[in-house]
Amino acid sequence: MTRSSPRERIIESARDLFRKHGLRGVGVDAIAEAAGTNKMTLYRHFGSKDELIAACLSRAGEEAQEDWSDLSAQFPGDARKQLHAWIQMATACALDDPRGCDIANAAVELTEADHPARKVIEQFKTDYRNRLAELCSQAGAGEADLLADALCLLMEGARVSWQSVGPNGPASHFVRISEAVVEAFTRQSRDEHLVQPPA
Amino acid sequence: MTRSSPRERIIESARDLFRKHGLRGVGVDAIAEAAGTNKMTLYRHFGSKDELIAACLSRAGEEAQEDWSDLSAQFPGDARKQLHAWIQMATACALDDPRGCDIANAAVELTEADHPARKVIEQFKTDYRNRLAELCSQAGAGEADLLADALCLLMEGARVSWQSVGPNGPASHFVRISEAVVEAFTRQSRDEHLVQPPA
Repeated sequence: MTRSSPRERIIESARDLFRKHGLRGVGVDAIAEAAGTNKMTLYRHFGSKDELIAACLSRAGEEAQEDWSDLSAQFPGDARKQLHAWIQMATACALDDPRGCDIANAAVELTEADHPARKVIEQFKTDYRNRLAELCSQAGAGEADLLADALCLLMEGARVSWQSVGPNGPASHFVRISEAVVEAFTRQSRDEHLVQPPA
Repeated sequence: MTRSSPRERIIESARDLFRKHGLRGVGVDAIAEAAGTNKMTLYRHFGSKDELIAACLSRAGEEAQEDWSDLSAQFPGDARKQLHAWIQMATACALDDPRGCDIANAAVELTEADHPARKVIEQFKTDYRNRLAELCSQAGAGEADLLADALCLLMEGARVSWQSVGPNGPASHFVRISEAVVEAFTRQSRDEHLVQPPA
C-alpha cells in the first residue's frame, strides 16, 4: 500500500473492486478493508456508497481527459493523424480491457434514474462525444457530428461486445470498421472513390 | 396474473424485475412473490438464481429468433429489403427500450467467468452475428462478415449509449449511420460513387 491519503486509497481500492465484482457486487466494508482504513473514514469522505461510485467515475473521466491531451501532444495541429491515433487508442481501450468502460458499465448497472452517478455518466459521455466531433470537424469530415456519433457507437459497442463474446468477436474488427467509416465521412469530394475497407 | 404455469410465471416475473432493478438488484424472494409462488417452487424449477438468470436470457434469445422469422416473412427472398428492415427493427429495439439488451447487460453485470449464463450470452450473440452476416452476404455485401460486425457494434453501442445519455445522444443517429455503413459495404463496384449519408 502506498502512502497516499485515505481518500485516494479508498478511490483506488473501490475502482479495483468495482471492476472485478461490479458496482453491486462489493460492499463498503470490503472497500474500506482493501484501502487499509475503516467504514467510518469512508463515510466521512464520501457520505455514501453511491457518492463513492460517483467519485470513482469522475476519476475515470479525468483519466480519459489525459488521453485527449496525449493525442494533441502527439500530433500537434494534425487533426487527421489525431483521429487515426484516436482509433488506435480506442482499440487499445476496447481490446486490452475485458471489463469495458467503467462509465458505460455503470450506466447499465445503476438502474435508478436519480443515482448521483447519473450526472457524471451523462456529462462525461456528452463531453467525450463533443470533443470527438470537434476532432472530426478539424479532420475535414463533412458531417462531423454524424461521424463522431458513429465512432462513439462503434467504440461503446466494441467494449460491450468484448464482454459478451470476447476479443475475437465483432470487436476484433473495430479498427478496420472505424477506418472505413472515417474514410466514408472524410473523403474530399463525391468524385473521389471511397477507399475500400482495408483488406 | 394469468393462469400460466409456475415456471412461466417465475420467468416472466424475473425478467420484469431484472430489467427494472438489475440482475443483482433483486432476490429470489421478491421474484417468487411477484410470480405468486414461493422460493421452494422457484428452486425446484431452476436450482439456483444463477440458473434462473440463464433461463431468462434463453427466453430473450428465443424472442429475438422470432424477430428474424418476421423479417424473412415480411420480405421473402429480398435480402436487401430484409437488411433495411433489420435496421428499422434494431432502431426500434434501441430507441424504444431505455434498458437496452438484456443479454448484453447481463454480460456487463455478471463478472464471474464461470456463471451459467455466460454460455447463453456467448451462444446468442454469436448466432445473432452469424445470422446477420448471412443476410449481409445475401444482400450483396462484398465483405459481409465485416459489415455484420459493424452493424453489431453499432447496435450494441446504441443500446448502451441510450443508457448513458438517453435517446437524443449518438443512438438517435443509428439509422442514418447504419444506412451509410450498409451503402459503403454493398455498393456494386468501386466505380460507383458511395451514396452520401442521408441528409
